[in-house]
Amino acid sequence: MYLGLLEQYKKELPITENTPMVSLQEGNTPLIYAGEISKRVGAKVYLKYEGMNPTGSFKDRGMVMAVAKAMEEGSEAIICASTGNTSASAAAYAARSGLKCIVLIPEGKIAQGKLAQAYMHGATVISIEGNFDKALEIVKSISKKHPITLVNSINPYRIQGQKTAAFEVCDQLEKAPDYLAIPVGNAGNITAYWQGFKEYYRQGLTDKKPRMLGFQAEGASPIVQDEAVEHPETIATAIRIGNPASWEKAKEALRESQGMIDSVSDEEITEAYHLLARQEGVFVEPASAASVAGLLKNYKKLGLTQEDTVVCVNTGNGLKDPNYAISTIKEKPEVVPATEKEILKRIL
Amino acid sequence: MYLGLLEQYKKELPITENTPMVSLQEGNTPLIYAGEISKRVGAKVYLKYEGMNPTGSFKDRGMVMAVAKAMEEGSEAIICASTGNTSASAAAYAARSGLKCIVLIPEGKIAQGKLAQAYMHGATVISIEGNFDKALEIVKSISKKHPITLVNSINPYRIQGQKTAAFEVCDQLEKAPDYLAIPVGNAGNITAYWQGFKEYYRQGLTDKKPRMLGFQAEGASPIVQDEAVEHPETIATAIRIGNPASWEKAKEALRESQGMIDSVSDEEITEAYHLLARQEGVFVEPASAASVAGLLKNYKKLGLTQEDTVVCVNTGNGLKDPNYAISTIKEKPEVVPATEKEILKRIL
Repeated sequence: MYLGLLEQYKKELPITENTPMVSLQEGNTPLIYAGEISKRVGAKVYLKYEGMNPTGSFKDRGMVMAVAKAMEEGSEAIICASTGNTSASAAAYAARSGLKCIVLIPEGKIAQGKLAQAYMHGATVISIEGNFDKALEIVKSISKKHPITLVNSINPYRIQGQKTAAFEVCDQLEKAPDYLAIPVGNAGNITAYWQGFKEYYRQGLTDKKPRMLGFQAEGASPIVQDEAVEHPETIATAIRIGNPASWEKAKEALRESQGMIDSVSDEEITEAYHLLARQEGVFVEPASAASVAGLLKNYKKLGLTQEDTVVCVNTGNGLKDPNYAISTIKEKPEVVPATEKEILKRIL
Repeated sequence: MYLGLLEQYKKELPITENTPMVSLQEGNTPLIYAGEISKRVGAKVYLKYEGMNPTGSFKDRGMVMAVAKAMEEGSEAIICASTGNTSASAAAYAARSGLKCIVLIPEGKIAQGKLAQAYMHGATVISIEGNFDKALEIVKSISKKHPITLVNSINPYRIQGQKTAAFEVCDQLEKAPDYLAIPVGNAGNITAYWQGFKEYYRQGLTDKKPRMLGFQAEGASPIVQDEAVEHPETIATAIRIGNPASWEKAKEALRESQGMIDSVSDEEITEAYHLLARQEGVFVEPASAASVAGLLKNYKKLGLTQEDTVVCVNTGNGLKDPNYAISTIKEKPEVVPATEKEILKRIL
């Protein structure tokens, strides 16, 4: 029986005999062949569907590690700033482990599903008059002065847990992909994947490393612009970040892998979001579609061939934000009389 | 690499050389140990977390089989009546397979997330002035007269696909559990699990079969009352069904397994819903909590011991209905000035 990431990748993780083996059976997520996207870009494209983690996003990989280490170190509370996915994950693992959890969220900038998760899992939720970067500043300061463990991605255990996604991709393909396309917000995930790919390569488990393709939303693209963005704006709330914590590491991954960083517009993101749902059958949250949008924008420039394998990371589940999904749909539910005739009129 | 249910359980399913191997990598869902519930009932309790399927519910198991057979038979469209999860699943697999999908839903009785899924996956969604039972009647009639495949659970392939959940439970535990607690709405799922347990037992893969414990919502408990309910009412929308399609088969499963059928109140369901999220770290949709609510209500009567293994089926993901989740939370998000002092006041 699969027992979660800590058990699965024990040897590759900072686990000691005192580390509690916390688990919601995170990881082990599908790698789904994307037929339509493959056709469009002329390569073999797969989706690493991280929305299939227990709280519906890739954050569970890093959180299980961070929470286990917090417990090992005797901590009784965790804290984070979050646009939503981090808080959902922190709240769930804290609930399971009997820790107190405090989350700071930017006012009004959090999807309904993510908010529901934080509350349902019993976290103390505080909405601040400020953006993500401000919230992060406050929780950093608090965790320095009080016995509360910070579980944002600057917690080094987060990256350790998250790198397992790269291991899984290689295990599933039985090789490293040629390209790894990934949404970039706070830049922890691109950092973690690159670390994972390097570790597998160093151990001789793969014979190459992929080129890393990072995609930011146009209105929140500090790395592309090489300048922090004071008021980041995009419909892709999970990557609405103006001053990424792992900025330098992301640049390192891009440089070392001879990768590419680019931005995609909200329109391109929304188009990829619908393409994924309508053609591949995979419902993701908008930020997740940035990897596919970026690939569709750049495949010619990359000169992909039929021999190339591309993995697009889809970071979160579409159910995180159903209200947004419905707002993008033109058709509205029509209520009709319950007769066969009325139904047939509409479908034949 | 795990390639989905049809590939995984090929030999146990009605698959021919002409069956397309449709997959969103459904199945392979976590079986999570529930520490707090185990303590309360005095047995080893696990959660079969079916919310980790691609569209967030157990329906994907049956739908992948039904859609594959529809394609094999040359069908170009599928239709169903649904309180939400079936339509979400049908829409996703139809999108992936290039089929047209039509869903009939009872007016106003569908969770926001499920509606978002049907639309996002490009289904034709028609809301009728009537309840689920009426919608089912109409789609049955239409599918008889037109070349459109009915994919409700009366489609026999649905039960075939769904029985794989029982296989997985036995594979994960390396034995059959002593008890299987499950929410009962249309009664297809209890039927499918029982069939799966019987098949594994017959093949000698397990040395016993579990007792089946079915739990209905009080306001929608026709099997408990032994009488159809004309106006079923419960907050657990996924099991708000007054006249179950698999009524007789469910009774057979209960009789053959020396099982139990009981009802739980909306209050008991909501309490179990919060217990799961706050203590076990598992966020389910309300109907899913009926299995746990039923177990908590009946464990003394069942005379459970520490030696007993109980599996509670959690049929769907909590993210299907975030609006409902938030409506059950007493705390409301407080917006505070972005200063350390204001935050500390609220957490220390």
